[in-house]
This record gives sequence, C-alpha cells and structure tokens, in this order.
Amino acid sequence: MTGWVAIAGLGPGAEALVTPEVTATLADATDVVGYIPYVARVAERPGLTLHASDNRVEVDRARHALQMAAEGRRVVVVSSGDPGVFAMAAAVFEALEAGAPDWRDLEIRVLPGITAMLAASARAGAPLGHDFCAINLSDNLKPWALIEKRLRLAAEADFAMAFYNPRSKARPEGFARVLEVLRAACGDDRPVIFARAVSTPEEKLTVVPLTEARPEMADMRTVVLVGSSLTRVLRAGDRPLVYTPRSAPE
Amino acid sequence: MTGWVAIAGLGPGAEALVTPEVTATLADATDVVGYIPYVARVAERPGLTLHASDNRVEVDRARHALQMAAEGRRVVVVSSGDPGVFAMAAAVFEALEAGAPDWRDLEIRVLPGITAMLAASARAGAPLGHDFCAINLSDNLKPWALIEKRLRLAAEADFAMAFYNPRSKARPEGFARVLEVLRAACGDDRPVIFARAVSTPEEKLTVVPLTEARPEMADMRTVVLVGSSLTRVLRAGDRPLVYTPRSAPE
Repeated sequence: MTGWVAIAGLGPGAEALVTPEVTATLADATDVVGYIPYVARVAERPGLTLHASDNRVEVDRARHALQMAAEGRRVVVVSSGDPGVFAMAAAVFEALEAGAPDWRDLEIRVLPGITAMLAASARAGAPLGHDFCAINLSDNLKPWALIEKRLRLAAEADFAMAFYNPRSKARPEGFARVLEVLRAACGDDRPVIFARAVSTPEEKLTVVPLTEARPEMADMRTVVLVGSSLTRVLRAGDRPLVYTPRSAPE
Repeated sequence: MTGWVAIAGLGPGAEALVTPEVTATLADATDVVGYIPYVARVAERPGLTLHASDNRVEVDRARHALQMAAEGRRVVVVSSGDPGVFAMAAAVFEALEAGAPDWRDLEIRVLPGITAMLAASARAGAPLGHDFCAINLSDNLKPWALIEKRLRLAAEADFAMAFYNPRSKARPEGFARVLEVLRAACGDDRPVIFARAVSTPEEKLTVVPLTEARPEMADMRTVVLVGSSLTRVLRAGDRPLVYTPRSAPE
C-alpha cells in the first residue's frame, strides 16, 4: 500500500463550505490528524483512526503524519479554513525539510479551503474587494516589532487588512496596541469588522468605525477586517454592507 | 415570489473545488449572470436562464442582476475564484449604492469560493504560509503609480505577495515593470511561482528565482506568487515545494 499525506482545509465551520475534494479525500483516508476541535469535525467510521492533539504541537503532529504515510497509511492533516493560511501546511513542510530524506518521495498534497477572512468578507459584503493584506497578529513565532512594522506599512500602502489570531488570554495587550497603531495611521472612521465563528451557530458580525473598536470585541475565534481609505459602509435593510470599490482615483 | 441575488464563487476551475453551498444555490436559481467563460461552467436545465456577458461590463451586469431580483427572480452572479477578491461582489455593491433605493431591501448574499491565489499556493506548497498581500496588477481602474507604491511597501514589509491579472495584451509592459521593481527591492533568489489555470486541464506551474522570471511567463489566466525573504524551496521527488515558515527570527 502506498501512503500519502493530504493537508486539507475544512473551511470556517459549515459543512456546506467543505469542498467535495476534501470530503472525497477524507473518505479515502486511514488516519486523520489535527487540533482537537478540527478533528472533532470529521465523522468517525470503521477503518479510520482519529488522532487529535492539542494546540502548539504543530510540528510534532506534522512529523507523526509524515511517519504514518511513510509506513503506508493514507493520512489527512486537517486545518480549519485554508491549510496554507496560518495553518498546518507550512508546519508539514517544516517537518519535511528537517525530517527523514525518504519522506521527500511521499505524495503530499495541499487541498485548499475557504479561509476565515474570505468567509468573513463574504458575510460583511466585499471589504477585501481591492488590494489587501493578511497578517497573523500572534507573536508566538515572530517578534512584535515585525507585526507593528507590517501594520504601519500596510496602512501606508492603503491596503484593506485581515487579521488572524487577534487576541488571546496570554497577550491581551497586543490587540489594543494594534488598534492604537491603526488609529494613528488611518482615519477615525475607517470601518472595522469583527467576524466571529462565521458560518457556525456562534456566528457574530460587528461593524464599527475605528474609533469605536475595542480590544474585547475580538477573541481567538474572531477574524478582524479593516477597510482601506476607500471602503464604504452601506445600509441595506437592517444590516451594514461593507465594500471596497474596484476603482481607485488618480 | 421573493427575489434574491447570490454572488457566488465557482473556484479556480475544477468541479471538486466548488462548495456545496454554491451548488445548492445554483440549483435553486432562476437566472445566472456573469462573464461568458464562467457562465459556461453552469449546466443548463429547464427553468434556468443563463445570461452571459463580455468582460468589462461588470456594473451593467450587476444592475441587471439586481433588477431581475427586484422583479422576483432568484439570481446567481457567478465569478471564478472567490467573488470578494477582484471579482463581482464589489461591482454588485457599487451598483446597489448607485441604484434604486428599494434594491437595498433585497436579500443579497455573497458565497465564498476558493480564490486563485489559494489554489495556486496549495499546488506549490505553502508560499503564503506567513503574512502576505494580494494586489491586482491591472491598471484599468487604478493609477499605475499606486500599484508601484504598493509593491515597494509590500517588499519593505517583507510580505509574500500574490498578483492577480498580471498581464494583458493591452498593457504588456506593466508586468515587466513589476519585475523590475521587485528586483530592485528583493533579493535575486526570491522564489516566483507562475500558476496558470490551476485545477483545470491547462494547469501549469513554474517556479523560478526572481532573476529568471520573465514577463511572458504570465498571461491573464496566471496568478503570480512571490515569496518573502524567508520563503524556501525544497526539492521533493521531481517537483519543487515552496513554503514560507511560520516563524520569523528576532
């Protein structure tokens, strides 16, 4: 039996946002590895072993997946959203680079998924409808100074912005500092979207001007989107629609 | 009958990358509007009218969709990729803002899809595995100076970059200039990925160092990804795997 590894994106939460490619690959797997709440989204069945692990052990998990594939198993590494956006794909390639040379002969595929910022953008309207950037606000793996530098340059470039991992119990002050940097660099009325758990029963969408944005509006299940200088908020019925026009003036 | 508009992303090309949400919504529609090659991806059936239109008439198409919904029809506006990323969602909201006031009472949903840069990233490995930006290189709707400014700031921020619409017959010189700006701002060996028509029979993936990147490697079906200073190229079997590690050094 020839083993393989597929690194699959389960999307933001709803079953209707899981691609048929991912569903078919899970049906063909012998093993699923991933962070506990993502593995919990995979249905148990005979012949499938679920290996759920805690947060912050991404490279251990990746090594385990590669080792099982080298032994002939068909392994799916599950991420939420898209595996290539602040998720497991990079961790698997880090483990591959540092690991056994014969692992490089394994079939390794990345199966894209609906990443959180695009699910959030769809719910809010089209805030990322023009040039934008995506920044992981966690400073677990990078210096805080780099985060601030990127924020300032992104504001100067007038990108719309998407922030992943805005806030954790371990560093509640980081996101407050992000809002300070943005207030200094952008206009007061820049729209900010707090999109929590989009497409799940816990979904909550909040749209506020930058002056009214507060750190406690975000948690680790929230993605935060910030408009560019051209982003507009329309009232449509009882909800705000946020979009960034396709045109920028001369 | 209550009309609605759904702005749906068909993904990069393969049926296996169309979400079940989009498939179900198309099954419930009375009308589909969109650019000719995207409408051609929707199967004909009794009760469904296909309205295919040419490129560069996005706002006319959006108005048509809103007008039909106001008349009680169930209209899907199709985009390739994700409708919120350089696609039809922003055009529909532009038409909504400028249009009849009662259009704002319509049910308007955006259905996310797999956008080209994430399909390309998945095929190449995980080049967008750390902070990144997405820039539309078309200067149809924005001044060229803004594109160059964003390129320079994105390079200074050390973002990985994804470029949409890199090259057209109408402006072959633009992408050559982009490569010049990048060569001046980034290292010579920065990996560049030309990902053409990912997930279709015409798929072609080319990975070269920045010094070897040539304008003619891109066309309008290509998305171009450029690594950050930390992006690595691994050889795995006969193919290059490009990934950006999750960590940045202090």
